[in-house]
Amino acid sequence: MGINYKKELEDTAKSMILVHEPDTLIKMILRTIVQKVKITHAGILLYNKEKNSYILTISRGPVGLKVPAGFARIGVDNPLIRFFKNQKMKTLFKNGLVYEEAKSLLDKGVEPELKETLEQTLRQIEMFEAVACVPSYFMKELIGIFLLGKKQDETKFDKEEADFFSALASDVAMAIRNAQLFKELVSELDKKRQLFIHTTIALAAAIDAKDHYTHGHTSRVTSLSLRIAEKLFQKEKKQNDENFLEHLHIAALLHDIGKIGIPELILNKGSQLTDDETKIMQEHPAVGANILAPISELGDSLLGVKYHHEKYDGSGYPEGLKKNQIPFIASIIGVADAFDAMTTDRPYKKHISKAEAVDEIKNSSGKQFDPAICAALIELYHEGRL
Amino acid sequence: MGINYKKELEDTAKSMILVHEPDTLIKMILRTIVQKVKITHAGILLYNKEKNSYILTISRGPVGLKVPAGFARIGVDNPLIRFFKNQKMKTLFKNGLVYEEAKSLLDKGVEPELKETLEQTLRQIEMFEAVACVPSYFMKELIGIFLLGKKQDETKFDKEEADFFSALASDVAMAIRNAQLFKELVSELDKKRQLFIHTTIALAAAIDAKDHYTHGHTSRVTSLSLRIAEKLFQKEKKQNDENFLEHLHIAALLHDIGKIGIPELILNKGSQLTDDETKIMQEHPAVGANILAPISELGDSLLGVKYHHEKYDGSGYPEGLKKNQIPFIASIIGVADAFDAMTTDRPYKKHISKAEAVDEIKNSSGKQFDPAICAALIELYHEGRL
Repeated sequence: MGINYKKELEDTAKSMILVHEPDTLIKMILRTIVQKVKITHAGILLYNKEKNSYILTISRGPVGLKVPAGFARIGVDNPLIRFFKNQKMKTLFKNGLVYEEAKSLLDKGVEPELKETLEQTLRQIEMFEAVACVPSYFMKELIGIFLLGKKQDETKFDKEEADFFSALASDVAMAIRNAQLFKELVSELDKKRQLFIHTTIALAAAIDAKDHYTHGHTSRVTSLSLRIAEKLFQKEKKQNDENFLEHLHIAALLHDIGKIGIPELILNKGSQLTDDETKIMQEHPAVGANILAPISELGDSLLGVKYHHEKYDGSGYPEGLKKNQIPFIASIIGVADAFDAMTTDRPYKKHISKAEAVDEIKNSSGKQFDPAICAALIELYHEGRL
Repeated sequence: MGINYKKELEDTAKSMILVHEPDTLIKMILRTIVQKVKITHAGILLYNKEKNSYILTISRGPVGLKVPAGFARIGVDNPLIRFFKNQKMKTLFKNGLVYEEAKSLLDKGVEPELKETLEQTLRQIEMFEAVACVPSYFMKELIGIFLLGKKQDETKFDKEEADFFSALASDVAMAIRNAQLFKELVSELDKKRQLFIHTTIALAAAIDAKDHYTHGHTSRVTSLSLRIAEKLFQKEKKQNDENFLEHLHIAALLHDIGKIGIPELILNKGSQLTDDETKIMQEHPAVGANILAPISELGDSLLGVKYHHEKYDGSGYPEGLKKNQIPFIASIIGVADAFDAMTTDRPYKKHISKAEAVDEIKNSSGKQFDPAICAALIELYHEGRL
């Protein structure tokens, strides 16, 4: 009657509910079983839908176990799997199969059909060096099989223990299912996030391509804006604010989206713009904000688009905001935008070197640009990260 | 020793792990408690982070209970909450507070500090007509308090029952936390989905706006494509394939994205296009596919963009595909696109009526257009849904 590990295993099973990484969860439960039940090893064969087979995870006790090569994964037609899927066997061995019991049953003689299946299954169990197998069903589907190694004190698994493991197996099945559902959701979320970012990148690049003079501008400004923000967070030893970076990322990708509303003749004019043309050109941040305004989920990203041409001294557009009136997200994009404009060729304006551009930004610190952001840019330059 | 409901409540608690809707979960556990423990009512005060207060959910037994007005939600400074957050009380009443025991403790006399808190708490408990309260902690935070009404057989809650409810409360706390995490994830996923769709709609509309003759074209084609697809699914009594509809939705929104690569002079030319201009104009599906090609997550949506100008008889572009060679998603958009082009004014081509357009589509069935899709469109017309 050595079932004194019951409470501890039950507690572990209960706390499993909040472990949402299926692999971690499986290892955790196997390790606990090996330690508490004091067995040589414990394993689980877990159904994998995509591969339509059962994957083996083993936790070794102090004794160790060599899993036969090729058994890290077994098919649905493996005797052991067929055994626990078989309706008759399910009824006979619903709380699991203890090797010795099954063996003596076989020795006593059983009906022919049962005999062959049982023999094959026992051979399979021998390969895993298991002394007991406990199936784990979820909604009548066999989602896994626990494999239990020998007890270190050489005692045998009794009926009560088999019952206990059977109940445990169903809890574990539910916890694993819960973790899998969680993981699927997280991966779907990640996919949607990627879809959004990649689509935004592709469309921003397409709009970029309309402006013959700014090839690759959007992706450079985006990358530089993110580096500046990281530097600022690092300097202020603030917690890296993921939300801010995500908003900045999106805002930088979309900052010139309003150019879609600027006639190509103005956008690609090879000479100096007239005053009227300049006015139209300067509408692009406001046009961009109008295009994006219906997207409530964009949050602060919208501010980055709308105000990236504001200047620290109030000389910018569209609203002539000053200093702290300018959203920080917009000020960062503004500096990155200016730096990229200086260091790439534009109509009637050759590019200057990075060193010269950094000097210009330094001179405009506290005038056109926010000093904190200029300082971050200068630091990046000295670190060779511009 | 009336704790014969233990097994049933434990089983309910275990199966809770896969209930991922917090409200359903809470109602389920309360209902089970009322039924199995046979009490007049059971309630739970559950912490709500956003509102920084505890929200009451009550399950009524046959006797019924009027909750005092204003107590559907209580603040963190409510005596009952303060009681179970108080370190001293936590130690003294860690497995819950049985009203009568606390009352007799009070009558016997306790230290002044304890006295006032306890008195206030008991008054609060009286208002809920509870005979016992069991706190539920998660990671040392008070996430909820169970309120238990009188037993119908008028017996009292004993120590063993209090212990049992205390353990149950911690399981429930974990299950609720699990469900809340799930719900948060689902809502985040939904938000990302909306963000993507809304951004695509906004950008598609902006690109639409470049083409002066097709105002609102994209949104009309999208809506019509989805209606056609739903009709097709309905006719074939197929399972409504959510993935297909999602891909179609995105493809329809982006079908003319390639127009961003067409010079405005051609796009907005008020007269018949020259052959060369037509050739450039006809590049838009391929240009669109090129823009979107890096977005691997788009899947079949890309096919809809690339092939929406292919024709059933092979007379379309860019590849002159025929019949089943044309992806179904593209054929649907093609018909919706053609219908919208006919029923709206274009340069040098006035619109025709819906009835006339339907006739034209009918005549082109099996020639330019896939007969199944034409049939769906015609049905929509007769239902007044065009």
